[in-house]
Amino acid sequence: MRFRIPLLTLTALLAAGPCLRADEGMWTFDNLPIQKLQAKYGFTPEPSWLDHLRLSSLRFPGGSGSFISADGLVLTNHHVGRSHIQAVSTKDHDYVKEGFVAPTRADEIKVPGLELNTLMSMENVTDRVNKAAAGLSEKAALKAREVELGRLQKELQDRTGLTAEPVTLYQGGEYWLYAYKKHTDVRLVMAPEMGIAFFGGDADNFTFPRHNLDFSLFRVYENGQPYHPAQHLQVTRTGVKAGDLTFVTGHPGSTGRLETLAQMQASRDFEQPERIRFMEGLKRACEAYAAQSPEHARQVSSMIFGLENSIKGRSGYLAGLKNPEAMARIAQAEQDLKAKVAADPALQARVGGSWDAIAGALASQKALLPQILHINNLNSTLLGFGLTLVQLAEEAPKPSAERLKEFSDANLAVVRKRVLVNRPYFPELETAMLTRGLEDALAALGAGHPFVQAMLGGRTPAEAAKAAVAGSRLSDPEVRKALVEGGLKAVLASEDPMLLLARKLDAPSRQLHKAVDEQVTSVLAEHGGRIARARFDAYGKSVYPDATFTLRLTYGPVASYAANGTHIQPFTTFHGLFDRADGWGPEAENGAWALPKRWQEAKGRLNLDTPFDFVHAVDIIGGNSGSPVVDRKGELIGLIFDGNIESLPGRYFYDGAVNRGVAVDARAILEALDKVYDDQPILREIQGK
Amino acid sequence: MRFRIPLLTLTALLAAGPCLRADEGMWTFDNLPIQKLQAKYGFTPEPSWLDHLRLSSLRFPGGSGSFISADGLVLTNHHVGRSHIQAVSTKDHDYVKEGFVAPTRADEIKVPGLELNTLMSMENVTDRVNKAAAGLSEKAALKAREVELGRLQKELQDRTGLTAEPVTLYQGGEYWLYAYKKHTDVRLVMAPEMGIAFFGGDADNFTFPRHNLDFSLFRVYENGQPYHPAQHLQVTRTGVKAGDLTFVTGHPGSTGRLETLAQMQASRDFEQPERIRFMEGLKRACEAYAAQSPEHARQVSSMIFGLENSIKGRSGYLAGLKNPEAMARIAQAEQDLKAKVAADPALQARVGGSWDAIAGALASQKALLPQILHINNLNSTLLGFGLTLVQLAEEAPKPSAERLKEFSDANLAVVRKRVLVNRPYFPELETAMLTRGLEDALAALGAGHPFVQAMLGGRTPAEAAKAAVAGSRLSDPEVRKALVEGGLKAVLASEDPMLLLARKLDAPSRQLHKAVDEQVTSVLAEHGGRIARARFDAYGKSVYPDATFTLRLTYGPVASYAANGTHIQPFTTFHGLFDRADGWGPEAENGAWALPKRWQEAKGRLNLDTPFDFVHAVDIIGGNSGSPVVDRKGELIGLIFDGNIESLPGRYFYDGAVNRGVAVDARAILEALDKVYDDQPILREIQGK
Repeated sequence: MRFRIPLLTLTALLAAGPCLRADEGMWTFDNLPIQKLQAKYGFTPEPSWLDHLRLSSLRFPGGSGSFISADGLVLTNHHVGRSHIQAVSTKDHDYVKEGFVAPTRADEIKVPGLELNTLMSMENVTDRVNKAAAGLSEKAALKAREVELGRLQKELQDRTGLTAEPVTLYQGGEYWLYAYKKHTDVRLVMAPEMGIAFFGGDADNFTFPRHNLDFSLFRVYENGQPYHPAQHLQVTRTGVKAGDLTFVTGHPGSTGRLETLAQMQASRDFEQPERIRFMEGLKRACEAYAAQSPEHARQVSSMIFGLENSIKGRSGYLAGLKNPEAMARIAQAEQDLKAKVAADPALQARVGGSWDAIAGALASQKALLPQILHINNLNSTLLGFGLTLVQLAEEAPKPSAERLKEFSDANLAVVRKRVLVNRPYFPELETAMLTRGLEDALAALGAGHPFVQAMLGGRTPAEAAKAAVAGSRLSDPEVRKALVEGGLKAVLASEDPMLLLARKLDAPSRQLHKAVDEQVTSVLAEHGGRIARARFDAYGKSVYPDATFTLRLTYGPVASYAANGTHIQPFTTFHGLFDRADGWGPEAENGAWALPKRWQEAKGRLNLDTPFDFVHAVDIIGGNSGSPVVDRKGELIGLIFDGNIESLPGRYFYDGAVNRGVAVDARAILEALDKVYDDQPILREIQGK
Repeated sequence: MRFRIPLLTLTALLAAGPCLRADEGMWTFDNLPIQKLQAKYGFTPEPSWLDHLRLSSLRFPGGSGSFISADGLVLTNHHVGRSHIQAVSTKDHDYVKEGFVAPTRADEIKVPGLELNTLMSMENVTDRVNKAAAGLSEKAALKAREVELGRLQKELQDRTGLTAEPVTLYQGGEYWLYAYKKHTDVRLVMAPEMGIAFFGGDADNFTFPRHNLDFSLFRVYENGQPYHPAQHLQVTRTGVKAGDLTFVTGHPGSTGRLETLAQMQASRDFEQPERIRFMEGLKRACEAYAAQSPEHARQVSSMIFGLENSIKGRSGYLAGLKNPEAMARIAQAEQDLKAKVAADPALQARVGGSWDAIAGALASQKALLPQILHINNLNSTLLGFGLTLVQLAEEAPKPSAERLKEFSDANLAVVRKRVLVNRPYFPELETAMLTRGLEDALAALGAGHPFVQAMLGGRTPAEAAKAAVAGSRLSDPEVRKALVEGGLKAVLASEDPMLLLARKLDAPSRQLHKAVDEQVTSVLAEHGGRIARARFDAYGKSVYPDATFTLRLTYGPVASYAANGTHIQPFTTFHGLFDRADGWGPEAENGAWALPKRWQEAKGRLNLDTPFDFVHAVDIIGGNSGSPVVDRKGELIGLIFDGNIESLPGRYFYDGAVNRGVAVDARAILEALDKVYDDQPILREIQGK
């Protein structure tokens, strides 16, 4: 007879306290689990090793990337670069579909408006921020913290010339300022075809085994010359195998692991379902628009992709929130913390009521959700410009402390610049999206709602949208520039119909903003902060903070997992790509599994045994897309592009048994550059030859 | 806005009545859904087409097969043939592991004891059987039906020279006699290596995408010459593609789709969990035995495989029984039938109490389950022989009607033959299994249970088992033959310790047999039959009967399905085989994904685009293994070897959206015979050249 530990005992052990499971954790660079890494893997990262990773890492808008050559070559995902590849496409050349290879550096295409950031330094300002808010009411404390953070932010910027951003960790347990070097001349170097980068399309999103070559290459320029970064990642010469330890640096966007149980239940019971419903409606509208012509389809393909991605993602979160065992664990951890709070009279006085206060804020949020969804989501580029112009004109003259947060001194320059960016503009799409947004708001809020009445003014949604788009000149950056420079007077004098609509949107938008701030955000911030500080008192920094789209490090081995009734292979290969292409055939599912022509032609030249994608037990989430994967030597072995479907509940809890990051193997990129794209200069540059 | 049918309405429509979903159905050859086939696929099977399929189909012990040449060549799964391939293996050659190719017909190896059957005719004897039981009590009716069926069976055998078997359809709604031609000289022709036939091992069992070449070839001989069957299947020259209609003929073993809700709930709440627990214990014992030496591992590999298969299967059933939507549908269908019964006073008088009677029988079954599991499952070959010898000696002298069912006139010759078969015998395995069986029974039933006391007689399980095995000569067929011929006198005179143990087992075994018959089987048969006849009255033969390991036909298209967060490709290819082998590497999971040497060497010669396995929406279950898959022309396009994991709840209900049969593509078999095994004679024979 074998001795077996009774299952109940194990479960009980795991449930006690904020016990970190497997290699859980999206760690900040100031607080890595050094002892655990040493104990489990015999590895202690040196400060120079960490600096090398940090300074090689890049933040993309909504994603991550890294420097991979001394000449500023940048690696990220195709799907992180997609909207930029689309932005430099023309009517004659859809580089998203066809792929792009710059024959020489002179052919690299500048991407308008694309900014990358390197994290140069981090400063903990918690004490100073809390001091500024000491003794104030909830509302006043929120404002005081904002003001103090803004002040410190500007001070740091002035001192260093870097771009400083405030970072709130542990739900207000810590306040930091992160200082970035900003790169604004970024050029497209190479992109594979969408058909191989996103092989299988949305169907395969979040799954494994996977066969996506989801990478693209950009280059950072400075003063018209290739930029030479302080650090860059060398691509591996040895590759990686199952069981090898891997590290990921990147920018996980948002998690809710330290939220209260009530917050998770609210997400489960109304917020996520409502947001999914909203996005499904928007996706149907995009599909209807796309069905009208290939050009229309091109205009919205990126938007549809984003929506499908978000819907599947939120559905995965929802699945996690419906996991009874995990929710029971979370409830238990909350009970444990509440017990610790209750046992300490001072703590109880400060934090004891916070769970109820949060529950109250959630009730307000539920009531406000229809307005949040519809007032802020009209999906019109021009109306967005219009509202920014109106509010900029109104806010700029005020003292910084009295302005809306997004117009604070630190943000003002960025806002002014963004409103002047030359974004692609399609009048038909504008009309369609604005019509649909107004229709949806009318259906959800009713004809009597002040916002609806203000926007429609007695007209139908289609009439209102058509009139505003047709007569507007806000698509012209020069027109917007004149309005920025002319200030409030120019804005009030303008008879541009979209600007007039924006002025009608201003009041309900501010009203909603204020209500959300007062009834929801400030309460969640204040009481989330109190609970977070109580958790600090109890457990210290043995836990990591929720993701905040700032640089984190996570680690774990290349590892199989159980799914679909079997064990999942840790690597896929080029063979698998052709297995799936052949197994479906080129006609199936509207060609979703058809390989690009270049790949069909290269088949005979490829070493089909080459690894393609792999899975590893790292703790990542949306925003980590494009993150470099490195080995103990700090060499690049892969490129994060997704998590498996089992990773989606990772928004709320980490399950090391099945949660996996999905990465492109670096060897696949080299093989493709060599045999499919015949891009020898880039291959040599990456290999440091 | 798009028009969408509200989901509620659709669900309501599907729930009403015994509505057959998708291409559901394991149809008997006398009752095919001709109109549906014509309406949906424009195909009406001709009688000659059906005869061709039926006469080409074969029943294997526990599986299915088909004739695929005019010279009696037989195709089935490797896993259906496995125990027979093992039986002809030697200490020097493990043909299961190494594979086997007979260079000439003279090298084909006769498999001892293997019998195949062709279904020659079917006769509906319902009226005659029910007439014999008219007006009798439950218990008497059960016996009377048995006696009448036995009489008719013998009559048919005497008349035709065929082997007749009684078949109960619709839980007693219909009684049939199926007449088989029996083939007893069956020889092994070719078997691929286990490593390719069962690539991925138990991990991959029941999954897809799959890469198993799960076939083996046998040949039927008659009078020492290859047998020429009346019909055989021609292998396709054109292949099959996604969307193509497929047909499967085979022997689904057992389903419970027409069981009452209470029966399914009893399966869910105690029977399946208990049986899983029992098998897990037996598997652990086998693994401990296998760990002792490679030879021990060889002896039990087939048994471990069977256990793993059964555990995963029953876990899948359990998942189905825990599906709330499906159970709600089944409950609704039962409510509908009950309402029809209640509306008809005569029907109500006959059937109204049957659901409660079945519930009572289930309570008895629950109470008897520990004895059922432990008294009948001691897993000793010798004790099995011993009990048969004892009971044969006791039963044979009685009139047929008074005997235990398995010793009836029709079965007697078969029993006499089986007890003399020369089965592989390993004394150490015998001792280990019998020890473990007695230990398990002691733990489950307690030292005071009469069965335990009789078997142990004050000794420990190990002592009792060791003494019985060590001193027994029952492994010698000649010894058993003398006991069969010597009858009761010889049995009573024998001092063989295993025979003495069997005599002690006799009484508790009979007692349990009687209790199960009286309290469970007869009640379920009688009242299941009443409910089934009421269902007949209501719905006729628009529904198909539960599976009974008799020949059925099912059909449906080659089709993808949604799983693992994506859409699953309908075909796999040889590329995929190498993707998985390379993706795991030869060392992973104890070499479970390592390819046989012959396959590694053949890689360069293979056309890797060749289809390997495919999935199709057919309604199959265990026992269908080895079933031929044919197209509209009746040509062989594939070979069923599994269902996907989503098909397991098919024991209780069919879900056409995700339930899929998994088949080897005929083209994979041809490519492998040609390029890997270089078996040109067999290739020509199959291709009819």
